[in-house]
Amino acid sequence: MTNYDTVLSERDGDTVTIWMNQPDRLNVLTLAMMRELTDAFNKVGASRASGVILAGKGRLFSAGHDFTEMVDASVAKAQQLFAVCAEMMSTMQSIPQPVIARVHALATGAGCQLVATADLAVASDEATFCTPGGKGGLFCTTPLVAVGRSISRKRAMEMAMSGDPIDAKTALAWGLVNDVVPAADLDGVTSRLLARVTRGSTSSKAIGKRAFYAQMDMARSEAYGFASDIMARASQSNEAQEGIAAFIEKREPKWD
Amino acid sequence: MTNYDTVLSERDGDTVTIWMNQPDRLNVLTLAMMRELTDAFNKVGASRASGVILAGKGRLFSAGHDFTEMVDASVAKAQQLFAVCAEMMSTMQSIPQPVIARVHALATGAGCQLVATADLAVASDEATFCTPGGKGGLFCTTPLVAVGRSISRKRAMEMAMSGDPIDAKTALAWGLVNDVVPAADLDGVTSRLLARVTRGSTSSKAIGKRAFYAQMDMARSEAYGFASDIMARASQSNEAQEGIAAFIEKREPKWD
Amino acid sequence: MTNYDTVLSERDGDTVTIWMNQPDRLNVLTLAMMRELTDAFNKVGASRASGVILAGKGRLFSAGHDFTEMVDASVAKAQQLFAVCAEMMSTMQSIPQPVIARVHALATGAGCQLVATADLAVASDEATFCTPGGKGGLFCTTPLVAVGRSISRKRAMEMAMSGDPIDAKTALAWGLVNDVVPAADLDGVTSRLLARVTRGSTSSKAIGKRAFYAQMDMARSEAYGFASDIMARASQSNEAQEGIAAFIEKREPKWD
Repeated sequence: MTNYDTVLSERDGDTVTIWMNQPDRLNVLTLAMMRELTDAFNKVGASRASGVILAGKGRLFSAGHDFTEMVDASVAKAQQLFAVCAEMMSTMQSIPQPVIARVHALATGAGCQLVATADLAVASDEATFCTPGGKGGLFCTTPLVAVGRSISRKRAMEMAMSGDPIDAKTALAWGLVNDVVPAADLDGVTSRLLARVTRGSTSSKAIGKRAFYAQMDMARSEAYGFASDIMARASQSNEAQEGIAAFIEKREPKWD
Repeated sequence: MTNYDTVLSERDGDTVTIWMNQPDRLNVLTLAMMRELTDAFNKVGASRASGVILAGKGRLFSAGHDFTEMVDASVAKAQQLFAVCAEMMSTMQSIPQPVIARVHALATGAGCQLVATADLAVASDEATFCTPGGKGGLFCTTPLVAVGRSISRKRAMEMAMSGDPIDAKTALAWGLVNDVVPAADLDGVTSRLLARVTRGSTSSKAIGKRAFYAQMDMARSEAYGFASDIMARASQSNEAQEGIAAFIEKREPKWD
Repeated sequence: MTNYDTVLSERDGDTVTIWMNQPDRLNVLTLAMMRELTDAFNKVGASRASGVILAGKGRLFSAGHDFTEMVDASVAKAQQLFAVCAEMMSTMQSIPQPVIARVHALATGAGCQLVATADLAVASDEATFCTPGGKGGLFCTTPLVAVGRSISRKRAMEMAMSGDPIDAKTALAWGLVNDVVPAADLDGVTSRLLARVTRGSTSSKAIGKRAFYAQMDMARSEAYGFASDIMARASQSNEAQEGIAAFIEKREPKWD
């Protein structure tokens, strides 16, 4: 286990929980924390872990960008902050494992972007979500890259322009999260979802996850050319052939 | 009517129902069936039929790809399977007529892709939908091209990564189908929807259907340039002028 | 205030309501009205107004394109109509201010496109929405550029192919509008939403609104490059620095 200052990466059997661990700073996404989160995701990505939960310690899921780092920052420094943030988001979608955001409380700004970027999300019914820049001095332009691809435009614009929070039930209705549960059930439900999405071949899921995000950026016929080639090659793998053989022989498959 | 081995194409007045007709094989999408379906869609496309229903005979809507054809298949053979599948999906969206999937039972893998690809879908409340590769050895990468363009990302990823089925009510809430009805009402409701979407000029609808899928692949300003030109030219047609004249003269229009 | 023939542009404090003002013609979008609406939006855009409401006088929100202008029109004339319409739609999304459609009644064809194009929309529970070309002789190809980017594909296709209206509750469930209220509350709720989305820095929101629509047309990694640069530069502004300083100093920010 790597020693981090702002992050805790806990392995439990085959899965890993990455905690944002600055409760006294409301898990504000400092440059240091974004780099440690990116490193923690990359380490899980390179490991044989089957899945990841992203969670926050303390009163908030995450308070978003660290404004103190933006005070009188040069444009180069500001560009670095947003580049490091974008790389963190990309890393979450490029690592092989499913990533579930476990949202127990407010996720704001880039914290809400983390939720929108995770493959899946489970929220406590006490959680809220906002992109508050619209009612301040700095519009949440980069968070809206993720939020705008997660929910419909009118709803994304309402969040962006008003800056007001939505509650967990609304987040579920809009498709920003996959499930909402009482706070006491959050860990149990998140674990059960993780168990459901880590069955089967991990290498197959790794190929499929990356291909999904890649093809969603393409026009449909290009997407089919790309996805067909990926799936044809994947069908040659031991894992695919084992799954197929097990299905035909009506037995349980055995994965590496 | 063409003689098919795996498909039934039944004309009833102006509309056609294309049945996947291998109930003993749960309408698994063999290479043969995908080619016959493509041929059946193309034949309807070239005819004066006004609309198409896609349905399945027997216990399932469709069990998806035929795993027996993938056992020890060469990469070239696998690429052929997915290319033929993608061509079938493209054909459904490129023929002039509205295509409604009538889903009476489980639609899995490429069977679910058929539902996502159809212009419209009506489901029995007994129908279920899944992309099961995520819990097996071969991720549903190509089905997700269609599913990912039909429903929101978190929901698509939940289906893809868990492989678990969703019920018809969930499919309706997520926008994967247009309506859910008791099994006994499935044919009646599907027919009434087909009647609603086959009114008016068929040539106008043909132009509009193709333009819709084409422009959805473009950036917005490019889409407006493309769509404006299509609509301006379409407004010159006899059908458009007849519709306009009938509206102004407050009479019923007469279509070719 | 500019004198228009078909449009009323009323300033009330910091905000402007642009009325389609041909109640006797059901606010049909003549070439003249589209040009006046575009001009009215551009004038608001160039002003220090903080937000805009788009509304319709009389029995309808808008009856869509003016068929009488299409009777025996040359292709060049038809192309001009759709080009002017597309420019009006683009203008609504490119002006700095939030635009809310206030929909009290039927919005049809290009009228429905106005609703889909507005940043936000509030509807009376008496409002209905349709793209009727599918049951006539001229498919609503250009309205579907906006509608297809606002709601899911199956629902957009149902509207487009059937041409049938959806009610306000359905429009809300599908994400075409942000809120539905009793007719008597329409003005109050629209004003309160406008107040919520015009807080904070107007220059920041202007940058954010334009960036949102621009990045939604890009692939994700390109979108992040673009959005990160926009947000980094925006963070240098007086408004962003004032917002940040106020947050840190726990005081109310002061905007220009």
